[in-house]
Amino acid sequence: MDVFTAIKDRRSSRDFLTDPIEDGVIIKVLDAAMWAPSPRNAQPWEFIVIKNQEIKQKIYLESEERRKWLLEKSGWKWLGSYSAEFLLRVPVIIAVVGNPERTGVDKFLKGDGMGYQHACSAAVQNMLLAAHAIGLASLWFTIYDYDVIREILNIEYPKVPLAMVCLGKPAGEPNRISRKDVSEVTKFLV
Amino acid sequence: MDVFTAIKDRRSSRDFLTDPIEDGVIIKVLDAAMWAPSPRNAQPWEFIVIKNQEIKQKIYLESEERRKWLLEKSGWKWLGSYSAEFLLRVPVIIAVVGNPERTGVDKFLKGDGMGYQHACSAAVQNMLLAAHAIGLASLWFTIYDYDVIREILNIEYPKVPLAMVCLGKPAGEPNRISRKDVSEVTKFLV
Repeated sequence: MDVFTAIKDRRSSRDFLTDPIEDGVIIKVLDAAMWAPSPRNAQPWEFIVIKNQEIKQKIYLESEERRKWLLEKSGWKWLGSYSAEFLLRVPVIIAVVGNPERTGVDKFLKGDGMGYQHACSAAVQNMLLAAHAIGLASLWFTIYDYDVIREILNIEYPKVPLAMVCLGKPAGEPNRISRKDVSEVTKFLV
Repeated sequence: MDVFTAIKDRRSSRDFLTDPIEDGVIIKVLDAAMWAPSPRNAQPWEFIVIKNQEIKQKIYLESEERRKWLLEKSGWKWLGSYSAEFLLRVPVIIAVVGNPERTGVDKFLKGDGMGYQHACSAAVQNMLLAAHAIGLASLWFTIYDYDVIREILNIEYPKVPLAMVCLGKPAGEPNRISRKDVSEVTKFLV
């Protein structure tokens, strides 16, 4: 698939078939992640591929608890009707784990050493594009508490479970949400 | 260009020709950025396209000062020989500015509201892939102080100049740095 097509046609989806995904496909998606840039090529990422139903259930329960907590704390109404039940149906969840000890000189600067998170986010974007090119639906999911997920997945502090990338065959057409025009957010200094 | 080719062949480069880049090409790269996912599709990014030589000079001087400061502070020897002079030659620098007020529910969670930075990083990755597909060399540059760049580019707090994406025609072959194998950083929970 052409790179511009992949970039523009990719959408977030929570609408997955339960069909399993072959390991070869999962590895193709992870290989795409690996080629993201990172400070000094430190590759500050690790991946946990979750197919185990019991673990998915634990992640689902945490996300449900966090959603209710967030609804109360934020008052953001959409959280009231948001259902994370897709976490139980989706065949594969990939936890993207960032390692702050592998960040760059950014750790001495005002951004508080977020370079490793930026690199991991670029890796996630590669995963989403690769998944779309392969014909998979995907979602970049983040409604959970880092510490609870650390415990569920045995992730040692200070590593951070930055994202849960959900992958599965699409059960329907995604909501084709649009974007602003470039001109609305861009300034030229010539 | 195929999306997997773009992902695997893209490399960071500081080796740019001074040839100007057409606005249409710049807008194509920015349009790719826009299609990145973001929390609640808030599109928490703005772009400042810098072609002005005086402003490039100011960014260069800041990066040089910061490099020397970082060398002393970190003791990281590569900073001693790192030259940011490419900032004076590169035809286009695009400042990617993130808006923390447009982040998602992550702002209530333990990650301290970095969702907007993650989205901006995904947008940067789209820009790098688009640039590569168009035949441009690119660099994700971050050696500078946020406050100094805010002043140079008139960016209002709390917006953050997260990245400087340098774009130009390639002056040579990039250093083809490799990656670990997926298996070295991946665990399956089946």
